This record gives sequence, structure tokens and C-alpha cells, in this order.
Amino acid sequence: MLLTIFKSQLVKKMENIVGAENVLSSREELCIYSSDSTNIINADELAQAVVFPQTAMQVSEIMKYAYKKSIPVVARSAGTSVCGACLPKKNGIILDFSKMNRIIEINKDNLICKAEPGVVIEDLKKEAEKYDLFYPPDPSNLKVSMLGGSIALSSGGPHTFKYGSTKDYIIDLEIVTADGKIMHTGCDCSKNVTGYNLTQLFVGSEGTLGIITQAAIRLIPKPEAKRVMLAYFNTLEDTSRTVNDIISNLITPSVIDLIDKNTIQTTESFYPSGMLTDKEAALLIEIDGFKSSLDEQYEKIIEICKNNNSDYIQTAQTPEEEERIWISRRSSFGATAKLAPNVVTEDVVVPRENIVPLVKGIREICSRYNLKTCIMGHIGDGNIHPNIALDLRNEAERINFEKAKEELFRLAISLKGTLSGEHGIGCEKSDFINEAINADCISLMKQIKKLLDPKNILNPKKIFPEVK
Amino acid sequence: MLLTIFKSQLVKKMENIVGAENVLSSREELCIYSSDSTNIINADELAQAVVFPQTAMQVSEIMKYAYKKSIPVVARSAGTSVCGACLPKKNGIILDFSKMNRIIEINKDNLICKAEPGVVIEDLKKEAEKYDLFYPPDPSNLKVSMLGGSIALSSGGPHTFKYGSTKDYIIDLEIVTADGKIMHTGCDCSKNVTGYNLTQLFVGSEGTLGIITQAAIRLIPKPEAKRVMLAYFNTLEDTSRTVNDIISNLITPSVIDLIDKNTIQTTESFYPSGMLTDKEAALLIEIDGFKSSLDEQYEKIIEICKNNNSDYIQTAQTPEEEERIWISRRSSFGATAKLAPNVVTEDVVVPRENIVPLVKGIREICSRYNLKTCIMGHIGDGNIHPNIALDLRNEAERINFEKAKEELFRLAISLKGTLSGEHGIGCEKSDFINEAINADCISLMKQIKKLLDPKNILNPKKIFPEVK
Repeated sequence: MLLTIFKSQLVKKMENIVGAENVLSSREELCIYSSDSTNIINADELAQAVVFPQTAMQVSEIMKYAYKKSIPVVARSAGTSVCGACLPKKNGIILDFSKMNRIIEINKDNLICKAEPGVVIEDLKKEAEKYDLFYPPDPSNLKVSMLGGSIALSSGGPHTFKYGSTKDYIIDLEIVTADGKIMHTGCDCSKNVTGYNLTQLFVGSEGTLGIITQAAIRLIPKPEAKRVMLAYFNTLEDTSRTVNDIISNLITPSVIDLIDKNTIQTTESFYPSGMLTDKEAALLIEIDGFKSSLDEQYEKIIEICKNNNSDYIQTAQTPEEEERIWISRRSSFGATAKLAPNVVTEDVVVPRENIVPLVKGIREICSRYNLKTCIMGHIGDGNIHPNIALDLRNEAERINFEKAKEELFRLAISLKGTLSGEHGIGCEKSDFINEAINADCISLMKQIKKLLDPKNILNPKKIFPEVK
Repeated sequence: MLLTIFKSQLVKKMENIVGAENVLSSREELCIYSSDSTNIINADELAQAVVFPQTAMQVSEIMKYAYKKSIPVVARSAGTSVCGACLPKKNGIILDFSKMNRIIEINKDNLICKAEPGVVIEDLKKEAEKYDLFYPPDPSNLKVSMLGGSIALSSGGPHTFKYGSTKDYIIDLEIVTADGKIMHTGCDCSKNVTGYNLTQLFVGSEGTLGIITQAAIRLIPKPEAKRVMLAYFNTLEDTSRTVNDIISNLITPSVIDLIDKNTIQTTESFYPSGMLTDKEAALLIEIDGFKSSLDEQYEKIIEICKNNNSDYIQTAQTPEEEERIWISRRSSFGATAKLAPNVVTEDVVVPRENIVPLVKGIREICSRYNLKTCIMGHIGDGNIHPNIALDLRNEAERINFEKAKEELFRLAISLKGTLSGEHGIGCEKSDFINEAINADCISLMKQIKKLLDPKNILNPKKIFPEVK
């Protein structure tokens, strides 16, 4: 009883809406929620409450209250953002969607699934597979990351090259607006040109325009079979040319990822899987489709790799070997974390013809600033992730990193690329958004933000440092 | 010289910007431009001038002038809209983009193409094919329809089922805004989560938010081979179940179109190609991919069709036979036009599980109103086109048609579908938009419209009857 007296009005209101068991407000709990998977220290920005809504109606009530009182609201699902997209705002509310985690429906005839934001992506993929259906988006952290965040950031993953990213699968969103209205942006038809495409306005908007409480997702028939291989190269040029040649030969691999020497060496020391550590780079190639088409694609790819001076190709012969390759590939972030107390994973994208200058440029920048870097990425999409290992408590190293990051972003932009292919902007890259997007588009985006969020309470300071 | 005196200030201004040879202003010419491919009589809404811009800069100058003077501007490419999306506004300007028809670049390494709005879609597809690349969108009028209109309406076509529609291929647009600013909404990377997705806000916005002067288009490697077949059924239920069973068997046909009995009979009398005229419906099925995978898919499909009581299947054995099937399929609109002085092609979409009630409902409505109807459509996407033959000069018939149309739209909405899958809203369906989309989304769309077009000069009265 005594305790209740000290609860803020906000906490009491939240408890009224969702029940006391669904509100956290101790300093310790709020501290835990002051960070996500980004290396940003955010201790000054403790929220007042973490709230676990369970229905859109509850979210609507919360938003009506927050709107009236001008309280910042940050939506969060698994908190795996690597661009600070779900870091809280001082005295605000964090909406943790992990308890809204139902797969509501999978309809095989309509090829759609309806799900809540707290569904873990791997669970969604596995549930779809039970119906012989396929949900392709596969961010590397899919075992923990959740649907809501992946829609808010329009996540990609290795399979984006052939299958597109999250945005290509979302056909309808249930959105709660800044002032608490509940609306559906689309319908249950994936083909729909009735009015403006509001669905795609919310996808990738990082919780700054509205709160996602449900999604209708397009699914596709599951590919019958797949084959995974690793081809090694002595130069980046050979690697890049191989990718072009594969595509020129009418093959669209379901995955075509680059893993550089540092990444291979680091990963092998962490999770030995028999990768060759003396090569400049490897391509992880997965082909899929009908069983009958795999041999032909495979033989062609082997021929192309050899023509481009690949002298070693490992092909997974069993599902276990396949899984081992994938674990290695997905361990690159974790492995890099063994090199130093912190690891920052970056995400830039360029037209594929500029991939070699991008990778070489990243190495040059990191070497100049004395930063250990493991580079991997989705080379088919021109999307590169440098994993930079450092000690952020070391002031000199931190300053070097900030400088390197700045140069890295400018390099990508100068190569006709942009700041993010699949991680988003959050508050990590917001200072650079004006360099990547022309002033007229920035102004339009900010006007749309003001239209949807006139009090600037929805995930403030994300994407744009200021909304003026 | 004398003639010049009688030219309006607007016409003179336009001639200054684009040259006299690029402006039409005679009453006869303006009358021709008072209609598109929709059966809407629009004689009261003659524009003042038809202008053929050749650069984005010229479009910018035109928009600056139009904005200052509050003159309506309607963008038009081939004028093949079937929903009245490019009908002019009285005393306004028509921007005819048919002279901005360059394919600027095809970059095979980056898998992108840059093109202007006046490029004919078939020309774009053929040019891409020279590079072994594929641009999948294929509206039935692709031999004449142009890129600009197809982006503004986000056109689909038979290949949408496997490959998606126009929206899925546009990664950047050069837009001229209502007040004449020129901006790029994206960049040359198909993977891009940097800021809001403005590109998809403009795609499908029917020229009401900005004028498209260039597009960057994602291309994909061309499928190696394809096979086309026609399977006949005695009931709609068998037809629909066949589609479900094909997909359940992990096959994604590149095309799966429904052709009903009336359509077959009408088409055969116009363009005899040997189709069976006594069957309830046919499925046009195209499979594509690696040569090695076709036999397996084909045999499975034949088995599924037979299991669903199909007793006759025609398979194209040569490219000529394939072409004949496609000509038949694409002739359904033209053939229906032989039944009466006018033919109206409608476009509704429902979740696929509701396709049988939709088709039966359309037949019942049209029969009740005594209207001849040929039904075909992209059954895989739940997207149905009734082609209704009638004499619009006959008042009773016209009134019947209006009533039938109203019931048709309401039927689609009641079956969880919507007003348009690929033709758009224009002014033909704008009176029904409030029934298809919830009030909050409508209000948001109108606010976005006002943001981008505060004077309501961009294609006024399209999509929404009023912007309040």
C-alpha cells in the first residue's frame, strides 16, 4: 500500500490499463531497458515505465494518455536493434511487445499469415513451414528478434537477394496512431492498389509514425530443396566477378554472402568448422528450388568459381554440414566480440558494381584508425557489414571509431550507396541522414512525421536528430 | 502572328517552356485528350493545353507556373487507363510524356534500369531481355501502355502471381512536386532502409502527389525456360481447387489465370485458336524456371488438374502455339467489344478462398441487370476482371450498369476484398473509396495529399472525390 503512494501517476495509469503485473518501474528494470543491442550509453534517458500490452485496445488507451500528457513512447519487441532504434526517452513509456506474441492465423489458400509484433521470427518461419509455406526474411538474430521490430526496421537477411526483405511481405498493418486511433493500412489481398500505400509508409518507419499491433504477411510456397557451398578466393576482384558471372548465367542464388579473411579467421578461432583461413574471401552460396534444377545450377556455379580462380569449394553434403556452415556465418558477430570488449556491427549498401572499392575503402579506413574489422555481408545486394571490435571505454579508441564511422558512411554515399540496407537509422546514424537524402525529401519526411505525430511523442530523435 | 494573339497566356507560357511544336491547344486536339481508355464522357472538362515535356527541368518550370496560377495538371503517358486516372480537368494542363521515352541505362551488374515515363512497357521488357534480364510486370496492354502510367497506377498483369507487380520493381523515382521541386525518392540500391519509403508513397498515387519524370527499376535474371498450358474444367469449384492444389504442391506458376466460358466463347468467335467452348472455365498456366525443372512441375500440374476432373489439357508445343494462347488470352477485352458498342473492364480483388463466391456473384449481378459479361482474371491473386459489354448510349442499360457496378464493388468488399487489384481508382471508383478504406486511413491519405499538393492542382478528383 505504502509503495503505491510513491508510484508516479503515469505508472498508476499504466497499471490501470494493463494490470500491475504488466508494468515495470523500478530503477534496476528501467536501467536494463535503457539499452538495446547497440553500443550506445543511454543512462541519462531512463523511461518511467516499461509496459507489456496484450491488445491493440490497451495500446490505444496508452497512446491516448501519452498523447494528452505529451509523454514519449518507444515501441520495442526483442530489443535487438543495432542502430539504437528502440532506446528509450527520458521519463517516457517503453511498450514491450514480447507478450503480444500470437500467430493468429496461417491461411494456406490465401497464402497469408496474421501475427502480433512479439512473435519471434524463427517461430514464424517454423510455423509457416508446417504448412509447406515460406517466410523468407531472416535477419541473423532471427532466433531472438521479433516481428514488430523487423517490420519497423524492414529487416533483411541473407535471403533478401532472391526473396526481398521484410517490406516485400507485409500487406496490412494494424497501427495505433499517436493519438490512439486503431487503423488497418491495407487488407487481406496482396494485390491492392486502392488508395495510397500507407502500409509501406509504416514499414521501416522505426516506430516514429505509429505503433504496429498486428501484421498480415504474405507467404510463398516453400522451395523444395536447397544446396549450400563455400567457395574461396584469393582476391576481392575474383570474388566480385564471380557474383556477376553467376547472375549473368541466369542463376539467382537464394543466398550469396561475402565473408572476408578476418571474419573467417576470427570465426574459426571461435567456432572451428573447417573453413580455410588463408584465403582473402569466401562466398557462401545457397541455391534453392526444385530438386531437379539443383545439379545444373550447382555445376554451373562450380565452373564459374573455377573460372574466377577459386581453387577450393566446400559443399555441404548433409543437413548437419549445411547447418555448420550457417552457424559459422551467423557467428561472425559473436566471434568478433571475442577480439575486444565491444563490437559494433555496421551496415552500408552500394550498387554492386562498387562493392570492391567499398570493401577496400572500409579496410583502409579501419586500418588508418587502428580498428580491428571483420567484414561480411550480402554481396549480391551490395550490402556490407563491417564488424568493428574495440574497447569503447578507451577514449582514444572511441574517438577513432567515431571518425572511422563518419568516413565509412561518407564512403558509401560517395559510391552511390546509402547509410543502411537493413539495420535502419535509429539514433546511431541520424546525424548523417542529411548527407544521404536530399533536403526536399528530408523536409517531406519530417512533414509526414509531424502530420502523424504532431507532439513528437513517437520514438523521438530516431531517424532525424530533430523534427523541425 | 495573328493567331498568336488569340493564344491564351497559358499556351504561350507552355510554348516558351517546351517550344511551340510541343504544345497542342486546338479544340479538336483537346477533345481527343478529353478521354482515356475508360468509358467516361468528359467533354465538359477540356484542358487548355496538351504539353509534351522532354526534361524534368521543363516539367519543373511548368509546375512552378501551374502552382503560382493554381492550374490543374494531369500527367498522362499512353492514356490507356481504364479507371479514368488521366482524364483532364477543365482549363488545366495535360502533360503528355510520350516524348520522354528514353531507356537511359541498363546496368547488368547492378541489376537496374533507368527509364523515362514514356517508355512503352514491351520495349522496356525487350531491351532488358537483350541483357538476359527480366522486367516482369505485364499489363495486358503492354504493347502500348507506358512506364509512367504503370508506375502511377502500380499495374500488375498475369505474371504478378509469381513476380509481384510494378511496385515491387521501383526503387527510386525522380519526382517533380506540385510547386516544381525536383527530387529523388530513393537511390540506386534496391536494399535501402534509410528514412521513410517515399518511393512507395508515389507508386500507385495516380499522379495526385507528384509527377514522375524518371524511374530506377530493379531487374532480375531472366528465367531460362517456360511452358504454357490450358486446362479445362466443368465447374468453378474444380478450377479453384486446382489452383490451391498446385500451390500446395510447392509449385508457384509464373501465371495462373482464369478464363470463363463466356470469355472463351467470345474470344473464339473473334480469334479462333482452338479453345474448347463447351467448358465452364479454363486455367491458363505458365510455369518457368530452369529447363531441368519444367517436366517435373508440368507432370505434377497435369496430375492435379486430372484429379480435379479436368478432362482436357492443351499444352503449347512450339513458341507459335504459346503465342497463340497468349493472343487469345489478351484478346478477351477486344473480343468482348464485339458484343456491344462499349465494353467496360472491371477489376476487383478478394482473398483467393473467396474466388468462387466472387465469380458466381458477379454472374448473378450481371444476369439480374441483363448485362453480357465475360469474366477472366488472375485467379492466383484473387484478382478478377469482368468485361461487361453494353451500349452506354442506351439510358436504361447505362443505369443498369451503374447499379451492377455498385453491387459488384460491394460484393468484393463484403468478401474481404477491395476495389482494385491493378487498375487503380481514378475517377471511376472514387465514389466507393470510403466503403473500401476505413475513415482514419482516408483522412490520413487526404492529409498527405494536402501536404504534397496544397492547392489541389495535381490530378484533382482522382482517388478521392473531394480532398477535405
